[in-house]
Amino acid sequence: MKPTYYLDANASVPLHPLASNALVDALALTGNPSSPHLMGRKLRRRLDEARQQVASALGGGEKELVFTSGASEGNRWAVAAVRGLAAKMKRKIRVVSTSLEHPSMAKPLAEAVSSGAVELSLIPICRQGQWDLSAVDLAKADVLITTAAHNETGLLAPLEALEKALPEDAIWVLDAAQSFARQAIPPRRADLVVVSGHKVGAPSGCGALLIRNRARALPPPLSGGGQEAGLRPGTEAWVLHAAFGAVCGVINDIREENQKLGVLRDELERDLLAAWPAAQALFVDCPRLPNTSALVLPGVNGEALRMAIDASGVCVGFGAACSALAPEPSAALLSLGLSPQEARATVRVSLPIGATLEGLQAPVSDLKKVGQRLLQK
Amino acid sequence: MKPTYYLDANASVPLHPLASNALVDALALTGNPSSPHLMGRKLRRRLDEARQQVASALGGGEKELVFTSGASEGNRWAVAAVRGLAAKMKRKIRVVSTSLEHPSMAKPLAEAVSSGAVELSLIPICRQGQWDLSAVDLAKADVLITTAAHNETGLLAPLEALEKALPEDAIWVLDAAQSFARQAIPPRRADLVVVSGHKVGAPSGCGALLIRNRARALPPPLSGGGQEAGLRPGTEAWVLHAAFGAVCGVINDIREENQKLGVLRDELERDLLAAWPAAQALFVDCPRLPNTSALVLPGVNGEALRMAIDASGVCVGFGAACSALAPEPSAALLSLGLSPQEARATVRVSLPIGATLEGLQAPVSDLKKVGQRLLQK
Repeated sequence: MKPTYYLDANASVPLHPLASNALVDALALTGNPSSPHLMGRKLRRRLDEARQQVASALGGGEKELVFTSGASEGNRWAVAAVRGLAAKMKRKIRVVSTSLEHPSMAKPLAEAVSSGAVELSLIPICRQGQWDLSAVDLAKADVLITTAAHNETGLLAPLEALEKALPEDAIWVLDAAQSFARQAIPPRRADLVVVSGHKVGAPSGCGALLIRNRARALPPPLSGGGQEAGLRPGTEAWVLHAAFGAVCGVINDIREENQKLGVLRDELERDLLAAWPAAQALFVDCPRLPNTSALVLPGVNGEALRMAIDASGVCVGFGAACSALAPEPSAALLSLGLSPQEARATVRVSLPIGATLEGLQAPVSDLKKVGQRLLQK
Repeated sequence: MKPTYYLDANASVPLHPLASNALVDALALTGNPSSPHLMGRKLRRRLDEARQQVASALGGGEKELVFTSGASEGNRWAVAAVRGLAAKMKRKIRVVSTSLEHPSMAKPLAEAVSSGAVELSLIPICRQGQWDLSAVDLAKADVLITTAAHNETGLLAPLEALEKALPEDAIWVLDAAQSFARQAIPPRRADLVVVSGHKVGAPSGCGALLIRNRARALPPPLSGGGQEAGLRPGTEAWVLHAAFGAVCGVINDIREENQKLGVLRDELERDLLAAWPAAQALFVDCPRLPNTSALVLPGVNGEALRMAIDASGVCVGFGAACSALAPEPSAALLSLGLSPQEARATVRVSLPIGATLEGLQAPVSDLKKVGQRLLQK
């Protein structure tokens, strides 16, 4: 049987051993963290320990952190809260965002526009990775919504420039799902930070919102029980949050490991581009995630490419995983100026921590062969 | 150190060994079930196996089942979908419901009324547990929303009578969180069934919606990625769903075990009532969950009672766990005609499967003493 190689860390990061241990430990507890008795309090303490760990990894306080089921829920929460703000203020909210947002942000945002609650401007981003902040009126924005790092290409948002251009009273929503494990702590100026457990090494099904500063003015969009200070009703997935907390406890090591991947990624990219002279790597000269390489194979049929790479046993990404089963080319890649053919034939290699030069030899050799065969057709 | 006794299964059921095993097994997998490659497909197969197990335990088909993060999310989904229906039909939706709904249903429903989307009538339920269906115009209902079993008292909904009174084209939303593990398969007529993993023996953080029949006409309220056929965008908590599926695979045994608890519960109730002559057990002569006993201690200070029982090492329920940290008396109990004092001093004993007469001796003896002391004050 052919071995399988996992180079798709941006879709989901392999489980961190500390997450696994913390999860298994937490299974020994019983009850409901909201129950006002001995066993409930024990769970609550365990949950709050995890809360402290996640908050601290984000540079926030324990009381600012709300657990969710993941970044999709977190992004929807943010947009629903902005709609709530529009209802409260009885006026349209001026939102500045980008075309690189995850569908869980972009789609609710489009609905908010349709509903009349939001007036949306998108910051143009070109194929060279330049953000044209002058094209939007950031000074008049009520809310800025940006991904900190684009899942499909690794392109980083110019956080400092955004912060500088942002008016004092605007709310900044930052989708830090992809950047959390790979970049420094999000800027203190980000008022609402969205993260996901399974992009850091915890299992899928947990995530968090850091709600602070100006974001405290947002009307909470979900109702139900009193969990998470009423901001996210529903019994917490405490075994997962325990795992999430454990990973966050070593976030500095994880960030360092991820930063080290840059050298490997560059090597891999050079290697593939040498084998595929017609190919282009996106955003090579831009600030981008150290583990991510997005390579466009011109003229190649995207579906044939995906199937051939899959058959070789190498797991890589094509578009966002959440919509990868859909046949449409990535809207984000199209917005960057790629043709539909190019968008479909863009291979995303995203390295998990622990990847080594030696371990990458076999899958890179497989990728080269597949690409060469299809580029010659 | 005093031993702890867990008699609070309605807040959260202790982890089932099969759930624990399935969860630990699933930790060996890596990736994202939406990824179109070998490892993604493997995960997807595992998720769909769990889906089949949960659907089957609900008497539904695999394609009718959507995974969620729990019953709170499921209940909110249902109400949001009803609001979507109102928007689509451009008219108020006539909803019939009860005062026994969980806050995650009752609060969004109240908001839907405020927004003008829903016209709500509640079926009166008296302290004797009788449902007065004649007091509402069920024949004109667009939607019926009922809990199948009340979490705080175990009172069961008269499912057959409701089904009979319901017009052919009305959508029936059934919150089966508490009944799933303890009663027969929900009626086939229920169009939208909400369940929770941690009320069955899986960890908290997973749940499901069965969406079938007339409920297919409801506009999906959440947007984002394409997961769960677009009905619940967000990467699935697949390690939890694997655990949920494993429990559902033995749901008949679990239901049988729960039914057997009726004898124990009756014994415990008789025992406590003999020690507390002033106390009253709610719904003794009504159809109710076999594991649940709700006992009202008249004249006793609820907070003192809670603290004294807690100090004795016995874990029982006071109101719904999700709002148990709040000082308000249970709205559901007030609606049944209890005074605020009575509602606060209502102890819910809910037995987990595996409870034995012998094992209950010590906690029941503790409960008796605490109650006697406070009733004498």
